[in-house]
Amino acid sequence: MELELVTIGNELLLGFTLDTNAVEFATALTEAGVRLARTTTVADDGPAIRDAVVDGLKRTGFVVTTGGLGPTRDDITKKVVADIFDAPLELDVEYLEKLRERFARLGRGPMPETNRTQAEVPRGAVKLKNRWGTAPGLWLEGAPGVVVMLPGVPREMNGLLREELVPRLKKRMDGGDALVIRSKMLRTTGVSESALADVLHGVDEQLAPVTLAYLPNPHGADLRLTAWNVPASEAEAMLERSAGVIQPLLGSWFYAEGDTDLAEVVLNGLQQAGHKLAVAESCTGGLVGQRLTAIAGASAVFVGGVVAYDDSVKESILGVPHDLLEAVGAVSEEVAEAMVDGVAARFGVDAAVAVTGVAGPSGGTPEKPVGMVCLAARVGQARKVTTVHIPGDRDGVRQRSAQAALNLVRRLIP
Amino acid sequence: MELELVTIGNELLLGFTLDTNAVEFATALTEAGVRLARTTTVADDGPAIRDAVVDGLKRTGFVVTTGGLGPTRDDITKKVVADIFDAPLELDVEYLEKLRERFARLGRGPMPETNRTQAEVPRGAVKLKNRWGTAPGLWLEGAPGVVVMLPGVPREMNGLLREELVPRLKKRMDGGDALVIRSKMLRTTGVSESALADVLHGVDEQLAPVTLAYLPNPHGADLRLTAWNVPASEAEAMLERSAGVIQPLLGSWFYAEGDTDLAEVVLNGLQQAGHKLAVAESCTGGLVGQRLTAIAGASAVFVGGVVAYDDSVKESILGVPHDLLEAVGAVSEEVAEAMVDGVAARFGVDAAVAVTGVAGPSGGTPEKPVGMVCLAARVGQARKVTTVHIPGDRDGVRQRSAQAALNLVRRLIP
Repeated sequence: MELELVTIGNELLLGFTLDTNAVEFATALTEAGVRLARTTTVADDGPAIRDAVVDGLKRTGFVVTTGGLGPTRDDITKKVVADIFDAPLELDVEYLEKLRERFARLGRGPMPETNRTQAEVPRGAVKLKNRWGTAPGLWLEGAPGVVVMLPGVPREMNGLLREELVPRLKKRMDGGDALVIRSKMLRTTGVSESALADVLHGVDEQLAPVTLAYLPNPHGADLRLTAWNVPASEAEAMLERSAGVIQPLLGSWFYAEGDTDLAEVVLNGLQQAGHKLAVAESCTGGLVGQRLTAIAGASAVFVGGVVAYDDSVKESILGVPHDLLEAVGAVSEEVAEAMVDGVAARFGVDAAVAVTGVAGPSGGTPEKPVGMVCLAARVGQARKVTTVHIPGDRDGVRQRSAQAALNLVRRLIP
Repeated sequence: MELELVTIGNELLLGFTLDTNAVEFATALTEAGVRLARTTTVADDGPAIRDAVVDGLKRTGFVVTTGGLGPTRDDITKKVVADIFDAPLELDVEYLEKLRERFARLGRGPMPETNRTQAEVPRGAVKLKNRWGTAPGLWLEGAPGVVVMLPGVPREMNGLLREELVPRLKKRMDGGDALVIRSKMLRTTGVSESALADVLHGVDEQLAPVTLAYLPNPHGADLRLTAWNVPASEAEAMLERSAGVIQPLLGSWFYAEGDTDLAEVVLNGLQQAGHKLAVAESCTGGLVGQRLTAIAGASAVFVGGVVAYDDSVKESILGVPHDLLEAVGAVSEEVAEAMVDGVAARFGVDAAVAVTGVAGPSGGTPEKPVGMVCLAARVGQARKVTTVHIPGDRDGVRQRSAQAALNLVRRLIP
């Protein structure tokens, strides 16, 4: 099965917006074994949208659009597609009522009249439930083929894609043993891409037909194993076999499969070992806490933290001795250790991590340059302190510091 | 002047690669006043590339391709385009010699024979110098129109785009007061897209030829004003005039122009008013601190914060009375106020903000559903407490809560 994607928005063609929808879409289709034959981006312009959709229908008979379903007047996808199918737009009274209820429930007062158009549906279209916003997805099928319209807001597009479109595509395909493309990710951190490549040198040949790709990112380097065009029934086993070859070579750099975040690995590990965690952050300013609390259920392990951005807070809340700060400076292993002990005592926990560093762009000195970060962690009786030097800009230093802090905790978990 | 972009690569359609070239390309063209009419992504497949290029030439007479110029066998753009122009591929002996020298100079040993094809050039094509790699860009012009081929590696694509393609496009346009596309962003928060549309209803007509687009996102709704194909000398004044019409209608929803983050507005406002800020976060878990400290120079205003995720921390560090927590629960305006007063006292500052809410997915009750968030803020003597109901998933609730917290502080700044 194959289809085409038409993304709609002036924003994309003006370079104002990076099109993340296209990659999300492509990934989900590949996973589902559907071939994305072409992606076309056009402006918020009736004739241009019409051309792209009609051409795509001629080639594949199946087009998905993203964008142009919002309540404002520049959103015209629905009208154009309804016109291609010769299907009049009809007011869905039941949906209009739901929209009104939604506005009332969220305490936003009466629904603005501009939202009314969102309850208009081309005759014969199936609505796809949008739990993330007010514009439903629409599936329209007829003589020209199939057009599925999704909203362009990434959160809504992605939700509808995963929960509505992909399941329907799967049902549509025949139930036999189709050839699929499947992949599996092994995540590593605390190691460079080239060091990984050295360790894995020559392993590629043992994996064929599975291929190996390196995906470096601010959280480490992910390794993607991909089985290309293999029977669906064999794909998982092939990937498992390849992962079994590679994972032992990765040692403690490896921390998870798939898209599991390191924060989740840390929370699970601490929970199993019966620890509670607190954090003390300086240069990361709340980022470590943010990473941990992004995981639902974090409260079982994470009790809280202190953002000790100003040195006075390191003293008053974390009890770092004034003389120590004077003697060795805030960015030092000694202060990181005092911070970790301070926050553990203060919060009454036996696991903690502290970060203090120079995020830049200013504030660096020859002895303590931008990117120098001191980290200390405790898990029960085990403790470790370390200093790392991180290249990159302020955001990069902060991201990698938070990752290093979480990794330090992970490696102390028994 | 307008043209189309055709990006070529299986990687893009499989979802393995985020297409950053498209946004770089679009941005550079917009800056140069060239309209990007359409972007098409196709696989490394001769007929698909041919279709996309030929269709683009029919529509605009000018197509730029990226990708498919490397030495490996899946790189076929040059052959396809040469065929469209009926131009045979000829070996450029001089360029072959340069390639050999390059390999020798970089100490890479003799040039692999696979690279030899990179010295083949369609008859009549102009080579565009590639200082970042081995494949030259190619400019081919003839009866079908103009096709410019650029490599797909982002560094090479971007270099050729900025140093070779854009200057040639500018020369091609008439030398007078070139027509350009320019835009200006007005950022709002605390208001829905549809409520904005109601307030701005009918204003569009006063702005012509400047257009208005709504860009909702987790931080609010941005309004983009765009002047299309106007003389470069007049663009700024037209945008200023339009902003002058709209901004008064936005009232206190408006917080900044351009891509300035709300955190920066808050920090600047507090600094000018002579305040220091601390934060107390529960459901946002560090996100507010993270937003503030992402701004370089935050330390002039922001002293730190407490992530009071567990209720015990609200009591022990922030001094929220145990009885109050028992009586009204952690997610309440009373506790938000106690948190804000606690953190201000504890950190010795006169500006503070506190967030406590139900981020979900679990933990909601009929009285306190997922998405209910209580916020309290103080700036000097001014104080405010409020409750909001935020739709969406855990990440959305957290993002919007952090934004609402920053906005509450902003609105208290004198």
